[in-house]
Amino acid sequence: MKELNICLTRESRAAFSNHAAYCVGTGRMGLALQKEYQDQLQMLQGLTHFEHIRGHGLFSDDMAIYQPYTDENGETHEAYSFTYLDRVMDSYLALGIKPFLELGFMPKRMASGKQTIFYWEGNVTPPADDNKWTALVKATLSHLAERYGHDEVSAWPCEVWNEPNLPGFWENADKEKYLHLYEITARAVKEVLPDMRVGGPAICGGEGSQQWVDDFLRFCRDGNVPLDFVTRHAYMGQTPGRKGRYLYHEMCDPSYTYREMSETRRIIDSYPEYRGMEMHITEFNTSYNPFCPIHDTNLNAAYIAALLACLGDVAASYSYWTFGDVFEEIGVPSRPFHGGFGMIANGLIPKPTLWTFVYFNRLKGTPVYRDDKAVVVKNADGSYEGVAWNLCRENQEDMKVTIDLPEGGEWTLLTGTADEESCNPLKVWHEMGEPASLNKEELEFLRGAGQPRNASSLIEAGGKAGLTLGRNAVAYFRLKPVKMQKDYGYDYGWYKEHY
Amino acid sequence: MKELNICLTRESRAAFSNHAAYCVGTGRMGLALQKEYQDQLQMLQGLTHFEHIRGHGLFSDDMAIYQPYTDENGETHEAYSFTYLDRVMDSYLALGIKPFLELGFMPKRMASGKQTIFYWEGNVTPPADDNKWTALVKATLSHLAERYGHDEVSAWPCEVWNEPNLPGFWENADKEKYLHLYEITARAVKEVLPDMRVGGPAICGGEGSQQWVDDFLRFCRDGNVPLDFVTRHAYMGQTPGRKGRYLYHEMCDPSYTYREMSETRRIIDSYPEYRGMEMHITEFNTSYNPFCPIHDTNLNAAYIAALLACLGDVAASYSYWTFGDVFEEIGVPSRPFHGGFGMIANGLIPKPTLWTFVYFNRLKGTPVYRDDKAVVVKNADGSYEGVAWNLCRENQEDMKVTIDLPEGGEWTLLTGTADEESCNPLKVWHEMGEPASLNKEELEFLRGAGQPRNASSLIEAGGKAGLTLGRNAVAYFRLKPVKMQKDYGYDYGWYKEHY
Amino acid sequence: MKELNICLTRESRAAFSNHAAYCVGTGRMGLALQKEYQDQLQMLQGLTHFEHIRGHGLFSDDMAIYQPYTDENGETHEAYSFTYLDRVMDSYLALGIKPFLELGFMPKRMASGKQTIFYWEGNVTPPADDNKWTALVKATLSHLAERYGHDEVSAWPCEVWNEPNLPGFWENADKEKYLHLYEITARAVKEVLPDMRVGGPAICGGEGSQQWVDDFLRFCRDGNVPLDFVTRHAYMGQTPGRKGRYLYHEMCDPSYTYREMSETRRIIDSYPEYRGMEMHITEFNTSYNPFCPIHDTNLNAAYIAALLACLGDVAASYSYWTFGDVFEEIGVPSRPFHGGFGMIANGLIPKPTLWTFVYFNRLKGTPVYRDDKAVVVKNADGSYEGVAWNLCRENQEDMKVTIDLPEGGEWTLLTGTADEESCNPLKVWHEMGEPASLNKEELEFLRGAGQPRNASSLIEAGGKAGLTLGRNAVAYFRLKPVKMQKDYGYDYGWYKEHY
Amino acid sequence: MKELNICLTRESRAAFSNHAAYCVGTGRMGLALQKEYQDQLQMLQGLTHFEHIRGHGLFSDDMAIYQPYTDENGETHEAYSFTYLDRVMDSYLALGIKPFLELGFMPKRMASGKQTIFYWEGNVTPPADDNKWTALVKATLSHLAERYGHDEVSAWPCEVWNEPNLPGFWENADKEKYLHLYEITARAVKEVLPDMRVGGPAICGGEGSQQWVDDFLRFCRDGNVPLDFVTRHAYMGQTPGRKGRYLYHEMCDPSYTYREMSETRRIIDSYPEYRGMEMHITEFNTSYNPFCPIHDTNLNAAYIAALLACLGDVAASYSYWTFGDVFEEIGVPSRPFHGGFGMIANGLIPKPTLWTFVYFNRLKGTPVYRDDKAVVVKNADGSYEGVAWNLCRENQEDMKVTIDLPEGGEWTLLTGTADEESCNPLKVWHEMGEPASLNKEELEFLRGAGQPRNASSLIEAGGKAGLTLGRNAVAYFRLKPVKMQKDYGYDYGWYKEHY
Repeated sequence: MKELNICLTRESRAAFSNHAAYCVGTGRMGLALQKEYQDQLQMLQGLTHFEHIRGHGLFSDDMAIYQPYTDENGETHEAYSFTYLDRVMDSYLALGIKPFLELGFMPKRMASGKQTIFYWEGNVTPPADDNKWTALVKATLSHLAERYGHDEVSAWPCEVWNEPNLPGFWENADKEKYLHLYEITARAVKEVLPDMRVGGPAICGGEGSQQWVDDFLRFCRDGNVPLDFVTRHAYMGQTPGRKGRYLYHEMCDPSYTYREMSETRRIIDSYPEYRGMEMHITEFNTSYNPFCPIHDTNLNAAYIAALLACLGDVAASYSYWTFGDVFEEIGVPSRPFHGGFGMIANGLIPKPTLWTFVYFNRLKGTPVYRDDKAVVVKNADGSYEGVAWNLCRENQEDMKVTIDLPEGGEWTLLTGTADEESCNPLKVWHEMGEPASLNKEELEFLRGAGQPRNASSLIEAGGKAGLTLGRNAVAYFRLKPVKMQKDYGYDYGWYKEHY
Repeated sequence: MKELNICLTRESRAAFSNHAAYCVGTGRMGLALQKEYQDQLQMLQGLTHFEHIRGHGLFSDDMAIYQPYTDENGETHEAYSFTYLDRVMDSYLALGIKPFLELGFMPKRMASGKQTIFYWEGNVTPPADDNKWTALVKATLSHLAERYGHDEVSAWPCEVWNEPNLPGFWENADKEKYLHLYEITARAVKEVLPDMRVGGPAICGGEGSQQWVDDFLRFCRDGNVPLDFVTRHAYMGQTPGRKGRYLYHEMCDPSYTYREMSETRRIIDSYPEYRGMEMHITEFNTSYNPFCPIHDTNLNAAYIAALLACLGDVAASYSYWTFGDVFEEIGVPSRPFHGGFGMIANGLIPKPTLWTFVYFNRLKGTPVYRDDKAVVVKNADGSYEGVAWNLCRENQEDMKVTIDLPEGGEWTLLTGTADEESCNPLKVWHEMGEPASLNKEELEFLRGAGQPRNASSLIEAGGKAGLTLGRNAVAYFRLKPVKMQKDYGYDYGWYKEHY
Repeated sequence: MKELNICLTRESRAAFSNHAAYCVGTGRMGLALQKEYQDQLQMLQGLTHFEHIRGHGLFSDDMAIYQPYTDENGETHEAYSFTYLDRVMDSYLALGIKPFLELGFMPKRMASGKQTIFYWEGNVTPPADDNKWTALVKATLSHLAERYGHDEVSAWPCEVWNEPNLPGFWENADKEKYLHLYEITARAVKEVLPDMRVGGPAICGGEGSQQWVDDFLRFCRDGNVPLDFVTRHAYMGQTPGRKGRYLYHEMCDPSYTYREMSETRRIIDSYPEYRGMEMHITEFNTSYNPFCPIHDTNLNAAYIAALLACLGDVAASYSYWTFGDVFEEIGVPSRPFHGGFGMIANGLIPKPTLWTFVYFNRLKGTPVYRDDKAVVVKNADGSYEGVAWNLCRENQEDMKVTIDLPEGGEWTLLTGTADEESCNPLKVWHEMGEPASLNKEELEFLRGAGQPRNASSLIEAGGKAGLTLGRNAVAYFRLKPVKMQKDYGYDYGWYKEHY
Repeated sequence: MKELNICLTRESRAAFSNHAAYCVGTGRMGLALQKEYQDQLQMLQGLTHFEHIRGHGLFSDDMAIYQPYTDENGETHEAYSFTYLDRVMDSYLALGIKPFLELGFMPKRMASGKQTIFYWEGNVTPPADDNKWTALVKATLSHLAERYGHDEVSAWPCEVWNEPNLPGFWENADKEKYLHLYEITARAVKEVLPDMRVGGPAICGGEGSQQWVDDFLRFCRDGNVPLDFVTRHAYMGQTPGRKGRYLYHEMCDPSYTYREMSETRRIIDSYPEYRGMEMHITEFNTSYNPFCPIHDTNLNAAYIAALLACLGDVAASYSYWTFGDVFEEIGVPSRPFHGGFGMIANGLIPKPTLWTFVYFNRLKGTPVYRDDKAVVVKNADGSYEGVAWNLCRENQEDMKVTIDLPEGGEWTLLTGTADEESCNPLKVWHEMGEPASLNKEELEFLRGAGQPRNASSLIEAGGKAGLTLGRNAVAYFRLKPVKMQKDYGYDYGWYKEHY
């Protein structure tokens, strides 16, 4: 058994910056029109609270913003429709979440080419006419500012395009064309909303990616192009293999991902003009594939915990891709568990990774402990909260955590645990026979099977708190001095003693 | 002023078959995933109750049922995903409405050609491989039967394709190919669910359309092809003119439409094998265009009332196209009022036509009066209910309705009136300046402005009930013998007399 | 016809202080546990927004705060239960409304006597032991501060007892004993929450009432007793007559009530120490009887409008007694309309007076016009909002309001009107036969009959806005410069012209 | 460790009559007006489904049915108000539950004496005037029949009074007077609704109680008094001790309670006229005291399981007293856990006993196994469902259940377990320090801590299913043949094997 001792007997301070709640990812904006999507987002925001949400496809045709029409004389008029945009934004704001805008992809009727990406066919080519593109950007932001208020909308971060260093996402991964797009777009944004913060280049990792960042920064600096933050992505999946529609790959170690992000941080800081500039990891996850079975596992939950503990060292945010399984990039999922990115499976079934975020998002106090297995914060009321995880990459051992507590009276230990035994709806679904459609009974059982186990114990004065984490468990704990409010005559133990 | 006298002093019986509640239309099935769509449908079913719902696009790619995939060896496998189908069907059944299935359009990867229709690109070409098509039909019905029960699903009517007599909806409007499609599809349906009722040819009107029905019937009879009912559509719009994205056209007289439908009825009855067979008008409305301003008017409500009063003579149902404005055929509407088909505008604003259906759907008693301006039924409890309308095609006159009541005591007259003065959200929106996006305040005002006026009066014994209908008013009335339950000491009139 | 001209062509400033939204009354706190009560309050807060709510019975036995118990040895222990208090406070705060605390009545087991008031038997005698009473007050406030936060609870105003100048509400209307109760209570409040604002004497009007205020102020000044505001009540009902359980009485003129309140204001200001001190009218209405039919009428709505226009001159708030008809003082109402105080009848039926508040609560701009028939404010965006009413005490005339508008372009006039024709559910219920129990159909009809009529018109440049108010109408209007957003090709008038 | 083997390899049939879902108890009818009550009932009916609900106080003054008033001439009139009755009945029927009416207690203004019972002061004396009582009964039933339909209301069972064999519930426990009350009441019921089923004597156990039943039956037989079923209560608490407001007592063995009920059954069957007549246990629980800590424990859940397994042998129903903790008999509970009867604690926290009912209510198939530790039924689809419990009265052992399965393929075993480790909110609350008021965080944790643990396993062909029950565990299991629907390429085990 692994052992971990956390000593809280003396005041100490640990390095831990928690930005887990800053942003979360979403398939594409048009899916936000769906009821199941909204139900999942409401469930998420009810359990925890994210501040921002970022997804693709703001300008894709299913959002139907760009709606030119040809009149009775055959003349074509530029026109925009904000019907769906308003609906999506209204729904986000009603749930207390603000957009982290991603400006893309290209409306078909504005595009220079026909290349598309995904089942839903997002056009990834540059605009045929730059002016039409910037007019679209400006009209959209103006409309938002008019509807939601200038100050409100100015507080939404804004990113230009997605992963232009991949030829699938940006025709030929043409860097020059991206830099040009970035420049005209960033200038258009500032023209309408000078205080809106704009950034790029939204690259994914891989060969040459760090060079992209460097080139991007140089370009902005040399051209005096507006830039408020730098964005990139972080995925851990190695070279994959495929079976049917599913993808399998080994994951790199969290420390590798951390180093990769640190290198980008270093590049940014190497520019005197940009030293300390915010870096936003606008997507991250283990695998980058929406049909990779790891996403449904407890292993995934533990991986993500390891990342949440350290990414705040280098980045101002890291947006889990994605909050739910309403997602269509490689087709519509045909079964509830299919390796989708979501923290929540279709049918409102919680997946283990959901709890990793619920637990981390609670940690708002002063950090007093951090290593690669646990973090602990101390709150103003004297209580402690922490998260521990037992990421099992090479071994199968349980992990025993003991916590030495400050002198004084008794403590209440409350724990929430999501592990392979008690919170593993994937396993239950598998043992049900992997049904493609769930009936009401199965659905309810799976929702129950996705709940973590809440437990408690009373730590006597001078005692130690202990918790044991099974394979890939992610556990939350809260330690609070007990203030006993016993009612005269109430005897908790009577029936325990008599029976 | 026009005058109408309805005499109820003696028992009488009138011809009036009310099938208004049997079926209602919907844009396309994929839109049923949307929250706004579900909110509108819930609002509708809360105000009145429809039994069936019919729309396009069951097999279109946004429903994502046909999901073949290519494996790691490059081999392609047939596969179906019922994720979205289940979600839509679950939501329908939860709202107490059953599908009237329309089998179409063609999944892209199964199609023989590339021709599409609508902004949402429904493929309208025959299958490249008949066997794949029938396999799809059978797999879908089998899945539904397994999920919802054999008997339940067998009770859903099933129609093959939509308007194959238009080249836009069926490549070249090729009649032979449609008849073939009908045959293989109907046989596939019966193979899985022998009791499911299947029909066609779902034609729209226009030149040659009656001939299509005749050819279709002959084909079925001669080939002994399964046929349980005949379907067609009914629209009243004449040759249109266009301005920008909007279409304007004169409407034919309701009596013309009635004669058109009667002719189809006559053709059916001319086949001894099919005499008396159900005819379903699976779409009807004034204009067939989703950007035709008439749909938002009180005029439309009055036209529809005139049709609801008579179509039951010849048809087993007539499905208003469509219940709501979540609709994308010629693009996503860019403003709340745009001439969309819906009874409910986006933002849950009632349009006048909604009340026509709410009122007709209440008429369940024994018909005692009908002409082209009013219908009245008598209920088992001795009360009367009726609807009157004042369709103003050529004149602007108000219409005064007087009702002679049976001898006896006092009557309560309750009326609900939707007319151009009191229930005309379109006018209010126009006078607001035709805003493309509505703020919360405007939205609430418009919702209020779309409510009919509820009023009452007390008819003394031997008196006559009277109601006055303004231009294009549709009015509901209920007449019930008063059973006064006065509490001792309660004096309704005291403050009226003293002030 | 009465005529009223409002001239807005030139900038002007009018005296009008609008505190209508500050506070609203409620039967008794224990009723807030009921679902119907919560539904009515939610409906109210959804239509408009009140900041505070005040009702009786915080310490009455149905709230079960004072729960001493006798142990197995026969010894009695003081004990408090906050189960219901928490539930009520949680529900208020969830609806965005804060309590205006009224400390009373006396728990039976703490009382010095047996005198009770109301069907629900609130004990109105002094405490048998002052220390037990102050301990109860302090324990309650401490608990609230712990649960909701010290600052939050300190912002809730706190009043001592209710109408001690009536022998029914305070044994013998014993002034000395009230002053003593006030002193010990106010000191107890300040001991726990020094920043909580405390006031009295919560008197109702009638003979000697102004003297009570004077005596109360002198007592506080001379004894240096904490006092942050002065409270009293305002009812307009004259000597009543009774029939069965119902009460009928003439109402005094609004100007009489205004003078009565001004006199109290004058008394307060006559004390140098208290000059300008806030006066809160913690209850007001037409009749003070919960079975007085006036409350359900449009007449009542117009009376209240007249008061809302002027009471802000002298008082910091005026709390309508009461928001809903979940009320039990003289027994549980046996029928939906029974002259209850509520703005909302049981079954969620809006009464006319509801709209008076909805309309006044919207008036947040700069006052530009006020007389005894209308008030108008101007908003920052250049729009005007106003309320007009046609209180018919002696005549039956309609009132025609014309509004001269500033030069410039077109204006949109939006109006909401609640009058005897269009928004009079009482009349409909009467004409239904005054049913004691409503079925679903009747209930829905009545809810519709309680909606005001929303209408609009377009005022051409240089034109005048006009509205006509029937008997006892209360009308809201909003005037806004039109910013036409016509879509190319959209022709609102086409179908009006062609039909 | 205890061991239990259940052999399902061969078809067998077991004696087990499951009436657990027939009826559930509730504090008193007036409490059904409360929102928290309705929320708890909705939670209950969402998790499982009860058919009937029975509680006290239909005629008590808080239901305010009997509302005589004195008019302006001093004359008193009989009058009834059904405002609250309608509201309660509407709410029950909306949740799919029907009343099991209990006619009592006495309205104050109709009573012959002043004796009351409970904090809420139910008057327990005979009517001063029999005619007023029967008029009240008849008026109430007539009203219900008019509102809900004659057939619907006739299907609600109806019981006369509650526990008249206790002097606290019926003045002097006067048997003659009860028999008289029963007779006039039963005759009044039949006069209005001849098909309504009426019964008594609703006695509790204890000395002389069986004699009461005998006397009651003889009285009915001899006097030809209407009688459709016999009612009594069953509690297991022995002589109690008290500390503060809490009561503690040993429980008798379930077999003792079973014998007690069998004896009543025997008495009934000893009358040829009444042989086989339905007996309804209209209340049962472990302790009869609402401040007895046993009710919150897992021990209670196990006791109730033992009773549910056997009471159906002798009784047509057994109504758990009570479903929720909105209850006021000995005062309002001052803390969330206080030994209240409810299956659901205030704040919507599930208690262990809730799951006993959820699990038993699922057992609708053919019984194939029963002993005093488990029951199993077989469903039409070949699956098995069962409940097992490990009631620890004298020992502390775990219990191991093994189930031999029929030959064939693999089986899915799904289990839900409520035991002292995993589903014990009482323990968590105790370890939190027994807080009287819960904050949002604590409340959510406790709701989670009240959930059972859902788990699964795959039983290979020819294998045995096994489950282990800790102390006082109640476990549900479902065994279903697996129908594997593996998608090509999906490999559940890949990430388990690689990590």
